[in-house]
Amino acid sequence: MSIEFVTALLGVLATVAFAVTGVLAVAEKRVDFFSAIILGVITAVGGGTIRDLVMDVPVFWSQDLLLIRVALLSSVITFVALSFFSKPQIHKSFLYIDGLGAALFGMSGAMKAYEFGFAWPLGLLVMGVVTAIGGGLMRDILTGRKTLLMSDEVYAVPVVIGIVIMGVMFKFFPAYDSEALVVGTVVAFALRSAAIYWNLSLPPWFTTQKK
Amino acid sequence: MSIEFVTALLGVLATVAFAVTGVLAVAEKRVDFFSAIILGVITAVGGGTIRDLVMDVPVFWSQDLLLIRVALLSSVITFVALSFFSKPQIHKSFLYIDGLGAALFGMSGAMKAYEFGFAWPLGLLVMGVVTAIGGGLMRDILTGRKTLLMSDEVYAVPVVIGIVIMGVMFKFFPAYDSEALVVGTVVAFALRSAAIYWNLSLPPWFTTQKK
Amino acid sequence: MSIEFVTALLGVLATVAFAVTGVLAVAEKRVDFFSAIILGVITAVGGGTIRDLVMDVPVFWSQDLLLIRVALLSSVITFVALSFFSKPQIHKSFLYIDGLGAALFGMSGAMKAYEFGFAWPLGLLVMGVVTAIGGGLMRDILTGRKTLLMSDEVYAVPVVIGIVIMGVMFKFFPAYDSEALVVGTVVAFALRSAAIYWNLSLPPWFTTQKK
Repeated sequence: MSIEFVTALLGVLATVAFAVTGVLAVAEKRVDFFSAIILGVITAVGGGTIRDLVMDVPVFWSQDLLLIRVALLSSVITFVALSFFSKPQIHKSFLYIDGLGAALFGMSGAMKAYEFGFAWPLGLLVMGVVTAIGGGLMRDILTGRKTLLMSDEVYAVPVVIGIVIMGVMFKFFPAYDSEALVVGTVVAFALRSAAIYWNLSLPPWFTTQKK
Repeated sequence: MSIEFVTALLGVLATVAFAVTGVLAVAEKRVDFFSAIILGVITAVGGGTIRDLVMDVPVFWSQDLLLIRVALLSSVITFVALSFFSKPQIHKSFLYIDGLGAALFGMSGAMKAYEFGFAWPLGLLVMGVVTAIGGGLMRDILTGRKTLLMSDEVYAVPVVIGIVIMGVMFKFFPAYDSEALVVGTVVAFALRSAAIYWNLSLPPWFTTQKK
Repeated sequence: MSIEFVTALLGVLATVAFAVTGVLAVAEKRVDFFSAIILGVITAVGGGTIRDLVMDVPVFWSQDLLLIRVALLSSVITFVALSFFSKPQIHKSFLYIDGLGAALFGMSGAMKAYEFGFAWPLGLLVMGVVTAIGGGLMRDILTGRKTLLMSDEVYAVPVVIGIVIMGVMFKFFPAYDSEALVVGTVVAFALRSAAIYWNLSLPPWFTTQKK
C-alpha cells in the first residue's frame, strides 16, 4: 500500500466518523436538518481546517471537495437513520466512533506535519493533537456540551501515545511510513476502546484532583 | 448598479446589523463598555474573518479599516442608545436584525467564493454559510448563549435557500450578478422574517426529534 | 535594551503567565494530565496564533519551538505543583497572573502589528486586544467558564489604555520603542492589579446595566 492511499483512506474514515458524531451530538435535542448537517460537517472538517490554517497550506477542502462531500453524505445518512438508533446504543457507538475519528485524525495530522518538515517530535505532536481534537472541540462548544478536555475520561492519552509510537517509527524506520500510520492508529483506537469498554479512569495522581 | 457597489453596500449593512446584535446580546447583563464594543466588533467581522482565513486571502479589515470603523461606530451607538430599548423590543428587533445580517453576509460570502473560483455550487454554499453564521456563533459562544445552531428556529434554512437561488442565477444569468445578490438577500431575509413574525417552526420530520 | 530582547522577554513571561492560568482553570475539576497540559498550551499560544493567522505571517511557534516549550514546561510545573496551592490563593494568584499575561500579550500584539505596518492606531488596538484576550477566551470557552468578556470586572479597560499609551509613544517618540513597550505593559498591569486589589468595579454608566 502506498502512503498516499493509506493517508487518503484514513482521511475518509475519520471524516465519516466525526460527521456521524456531530449529528449524533444533537440526536436528543430538537435541531433542524440544516443545523444538524452543518454541525456534522464542522465536526468532520474542523480539526483539519485548523491544522491547515496553522501550517499555512491551502485548506484541504478548498482544493478537493471529496471530504466535504463525504462529510455531507455521512451527516445526511446519520440524520435520516437517527430513528433507528435507540438511546443507549447512540451513546456507546458515539464514544467508539469518536475515538476512531480522533485516532485517525491525530495520525493524519502528525503525518502531514512530518511531511512538511515540522520539528520532530514536538511539532508532530502539537499538530496531531490539534487535528485530532479540533473538530470534536468545535462540536462540543457549538452544542453546549462539556468539552472533551473537561471530562475525566481517557481521551487525549491514547492519541498522544499513538502519535509518539508513529513518530518514533518515522524516525527510525522511515521506509515503513504507511505501516507506522496504521500502527499508530490501531494503538490509539485500541487504548481508547479499552478505556470505554472497561470504563477505565485515570489514576488520581494523573489528574488535577489529587486530594 | 455595479456589482462592486452592491457588494460594498451589503457588507456595510451586514456589519451594522451584526455589530448591533453583538451589543444587544449583553443588554441584560452587566458588561462594561469595552467588552460590549469588543463583542460587537467580533460579531460583525468574525464570519468574514473566518471566510478570508479559509480562502487564504488577506483578512478584509487588514487592508481597509472601513468595516472595522463601521462596526466600532455601530457598537458605540448601540451601547449609548441601549436605555431607549425596552426589553421585548430588544428581543424582537434583535431577531430581525440578526436575520438581515445573516442574509447579507451569506450572500456576500458566497459571492466572494464565486469570484475566487470556488466550486459551484458546494463551495459557494459552504463559504456563504460560514460567513453568515460565523460571527453569530462567536457571539453566542462568548456570551454563553445557546448557539443559533441549537435553537429550533428557522434560521439556517433561509440563508441556504437564498444562496442556492443566487448561485443558480450566477450560473445561468451571469450578466445579472448584482441582481442575483439582491434577490438572494431579499429571499433569505423575507423567509427569516416570516418565520419570526408568524413564529414558524420546522415540521417534525425535518428535525432530529422525530419521535 | 534592544527592542528584540524586550519583545522576546515579554513573550516568554506572557507565555508562562497564561500557561499557568490555563492549568489553574481546571485545578478544582477532575481533569487528566494531558488535558490540563493541552489547556495550558492552548491558553498560552492561542491569542498569538489568532494574531499571526489574521496577519498572514507564519504562526510564531511553527518556526521557533521556544514558546511552545516554555508553555509545555510551565503547564507541567503548574500541574505538579497544584497541591501546593490552597484554594483562595489559587483564585487570587490566578487573577493577577492572568492580568499580567493579558498586559504582556496586548503590548506584544500591538507591537507586532506596528512593525508590520498596520494602521495607527486602530490596527494596533485591534491586534493588541485580539492577542491579549484570544488565549484567555479559548481557555474560558473550553473549560465552560463565563468568558472574561462577560464579567463585570475591570479587565479589558487596562489593556486598551496601555496600548493607547504605547501607541502614542510609538508615534511621537519612535526612538524609545522598547521603553514604550515597558511603559504600556506596566500601566496595563498596574491598573488591572489595582482593580483586583481594591475590588474596583466600573461605574454604572460605563456598563450595559445602566438602570
